[in-house]
Amino acid sequence: MSDLPSQEASLSPDAAAAKRGGMTADAPRPEARSPRGFVDRRARDLAAERKILAAVAQVYELYGFEALDTGAFEYADALGKFLPDADRPNAGVFALQDDADSDGNGQWMALRYDLTAPLARFAAQNWETLPKPFRRYAFGPVWRNDKPRPGRYREYVQCDADTVGSARPEADAEIIAMAVAGLEAAGLPAGSAVVKINNRKLLNGLMTAAGVTSEGQKLAVLRAVDKLDRLGPDGVRFLLGDGRKDESGDFTKGAGLTASAAERVLAFTQAGGGGRGDVLARLADVIGGSAEGDEGLAELAAIDAALNGLGVGVERAAFDPSVVRGLEYYTGAVFEAELLLQTTDEKGNGVRFGSIGGGGRYDDLVARFTGERTPAAGFSFGVTRLAAALKAAGRDLAADARGPVVVLVLDQTRMADYMAVAGELRAAGIAAEVYLGTSGMRPQMKYADRRLSPVAVIIGGDEFAAGTVTLKDLDLGRELASGVTDNAAWRAERPGQVVVPRTELVASVRRIVEARP
Amino acid sequence: MSDLPSQEASLSPDAAAAKRGGMTADAPRPEARSPRGFVDRRARDLAAERKILAAVAQVYELYGFEALDTGAFEYADALGKFLPDADRPNAGVFALQDDADSDGNGQWMALRYDLTAPLARFAAQNWETLPKPFRRYAFGPVWRNDKPRPGRYREYVQCDADTVGSARPEADAEIIAMAVAGLEAAGLPAGSAVVKINNRKLLNGLMTAAGVTSEGQKLAVLRAVDKLDRLGPDGVRFLLGDGRKDESGDFTKGAGLTASAAERVLAFTQAGGGGRGDVLARLADVIGGSAEGDEGLAELAAIDAALNGLGVGVERAAFDPSVVRGLEYYTGAVFEAELLLQTTDEKGNGVRFGSIGGGGRYDDLVARFTGERTPAAGFSFGVTRLAAALKAAGRDLAADARGPVVVLVLDQTRMADYMAVAGELRAAGIAAEVYLGTSGMRPQMKYADRRLSPVAVIIGGDEFAAGTVTLKDLDLGRELASGVTDNAAWRAERPGQVVVPRTELVASVRRIVEARP
Repeated sequence: MSDLPSQEASLSPDAAAAKRGGMTADAPRPEARSPRGFVDRRARDLAAERKILAAVAQVYELYGFEALDTGAFEYADALGKFLPDADRPNAGVFALQDDADSDGNGQWMALRYDLTAPLARFAAQNWETLPKPFRRYAFGPVWRNDKPRPGRYREYVQCDADTVGSARPEADAEIIAMAVAGLEAAGLPAGSAVVKINNRKLLNGLMTAAGVTSEGQKLAVLRAVDKLDRLGPDGVRFLLGDGRKDESGDFTKGAGLTASAAERVLAFTQAGGGGRGDVLARLADVIGGSAEGDEGLAELAAIDAALNGLGVGVERAAFDPSVVRGLEYYTGAVFEAELLLQTTDEKGNGVRFGSIGGGGRYDDLVARFTGERTPAAGFSFGVTRLAAALKAAGRDLAADARGPVVVLVLDQTRMADYMAVAGELRAAGIAAEVYLGTSGMRPQMKYADRRLSPVAVIIGGDEFAAGTVTLKDLDLGRELASGVTDNAAWRAERPGQVVVPRTELVASVRRIVEARP
Repeated sequence: MSDLPSQEASLSPDAAAAKRGGMTADAPRPEARSPRGFVDRRARDLAAERKILAAVAQVYELYGFEALDTGAFEYADALGKFLPDADRPNAGVFALQDDADSDGNGQWMALRYDLTAPLARFAAQNWETLPKPFRRYAFGPVWRNDKPRPGRYREYVQCDADTVGSARPEADAEIIAMAVAGLEAAGLPAGSAVVKINNRKLLNGLMTAAGVTSEGQKLAVLRAVDKLDRLGPDGVRFLLGDGRKDESGDFTKGAGLTASAAERVLAFTQAGGGGRGDVLARLADVIGGSAEGDEGLAELAAIDAALNGLGVGVERAAFDPSVVRGLEYYTGAVFEAELLLQTTDEKGNGVRFGSIGGGGRYDDLVARFTGERTPAAGFSFGVTRLAAALKAAGRDLAADARGPVVVLVLDQTRMADYMAVAGELRAAGIAAEVYLGTSGMRPQMKYADRRLSPVAVIIGGDEFAAGTVTLKDLDLGRELASGVTDNAAWRAERPGQVVVPRTELVASVRRIVEARP
């Protein structure tokens, strides 16, 4: 129900009428459907997401990060969009023009499309009074006005942590260690994921060493390297050089590097593997001493030392120069968390699950507002994708979802007694409800089953007379029906139905609920 | 940071450029400010809200309610708004027109302004497959496009629970009992709040008995009764009759009841007090036997019996016919949760805190979609208001908010050692961080103090050489500085600074953290 007391009065008469459903009988009835690209999430999915967020938030707070929640909207200029575009003000974001304020002009606002832009605005707005460096984490929905496609939503929950105001590589290391700890706290088995680390400065150094100067050529190199997984070194070699013709005969223009420069880039991307120190040694050879490259190497060395101090070994956080995703965006270190498990797609083919989150160092976001570069680093993951990763790793957080004990109603005149039964169970910490429909016994059992109820409590005339209750073990029924269990011994221990004294109701229900294998 | 792996690719080039803060040096800098009517919430407030929601969600699940999260948007027709209004499409809601779909027409969507309309849409959309009755709870932001005023926000968090598909009064009783349990679980001391219950059918019956038939006159009666608190029975008597002139001489037209009808209405509103059965007996006298009034009385009697079964006494849930708030909206029972404490306003005047939530029975919301009346009942509260109520009741959920232990950095070459210290503390469940700025000792202490850190860990050259750590008790410093504590004995027990062996770091920090009075 609406929060009447606090703001109900603020509803316009139209809206109030709408709330009452005040349509005349012959008004057309709207179709009940959620907007394109938006989904309703039911209890199972929400339970998994909430467990993830609670576990991760606890870890992030252990690391000294404080929670922050900004509003859904930002002014369009704060987001950096050039609004309004008369024809399509919503390109990429959900934007609308606010009603005119006292200055007479309605400003364009847009729903946040990530949690970084609001952080930048917040940090710039409160910089003087914030403790610095400012560590914050945030989670919540973000909105992107994309064309809806299967599996791609226009609203989803992201969880970010960022340190603003520290240029120290130790800040990167802390974020990486915290990301690892957060993923494991959420339920990922240790060793099933690794954070791969690269640094944009290394690649810039490499470019300098290879004689690449134009931004366009750098971008072409990055894009070529990003195809390493798919095309292998030979395919990428073409893309780094003159270009590549694919199997269908289509030609992709190359980055135009010389053969030796291309080899250097390939050697760079293949410098990963083994201990972090080993990778650094190999990289030093390939990059060949540009100032920026050396800076990147020094940063990675400091990250390595800090990770060692934090007890984060290479099996959890590795240097991997083949990571280029996000290199265009970040200004220093880049992190990508990857699930190492092989999983299967819908067709049963083996696929790498791949990335479950990412981040890096970005030093010029707050500068949009303040004009001053402010060093920052962060890590972000999508909660739904992490839930999918956990499921792929055999940790289905929603697997134990069960409904309440259902107290059936067999005698309409004894409702207060049924309510009391439910109350007793709740007082003992057992979720319970009285069936509140009007159907008979069989539909009530069906209802209890659809609720994934563990136990149905049955009290009819006989039970009331005898001071007993009948308990039906619904878990057992479901197990047997699904063929999962045919263990005769277990079945013998758990008869499908028991009659117990009313005074032993709570203890008996608890026994059934807790006996679930 | 943005959730690169999952959807980064979907950012438009403009948006991607904006994320990088890619503005030229001479581009105008936007002002960093949150949009009008939207607030940033920091850790303290969020901690209180999250505790409330976690406690309430746990109670609601014990009652068999399942979580549901619908998207932020609904189609405008589903919300019941008549959009677009060419001049002001946003009246009351934040609305925008979606890009054209395959049918060629972009549909109007609006951010939800409560959690009831999305529930109605969801229930109508999924009615065939839902277990019925369908119990769900939900919490999350809602948005209202009102003119921002001090203390009134355009985005706030609401928490609702509703049962859809049961006309039983026991469903109302369950919601009431659950609301009480939820408020107490959130921290309200037992007895500090009461749910007041009324029923629209009683008032309708009273109107019939008093000869009132027109909707306009009914509304005037409701509005008059709603002023009982402020004007007292004598003022309301005028408003029920011919009208009332206030102290400034302004005249308010009355409802036009006869004197005897007005007395009957006043007697009705004053029938509260004492046991629920006593109130029912008094009401039966006043209402005088209209069919609808009798129906209302029977519903309240069933609610009373069910509440008794659930062990909810009159000190927690009382019948109070003076409650009229929401009577226009609801179709049967109406609930209002009220904090009984006297509190003081900004000027130190005693004020009743008043309502902290409300709800009732509404039977025609889903009908907008399906054409079939679907009985429903619910309760809603605003999380920020409940947090304020808790604070007024002496339960400041954020009072124990403390920051992490801060490990100071005195030797730049020992960063990995400092990181290891923080890691040890975290592994022991103690929130900790290494100072990652570049300032000296004194600003670092100031930083730790601003973080509300309980302990600063100081390890300089002497400590490294001696294998010790110095721990500074910052809670003590704050207590002394604030003058809250000048207990010499306590102070003697807690010296401001101790030096302990490095091996006793965790135990010693824990001792200080847990010693907080």
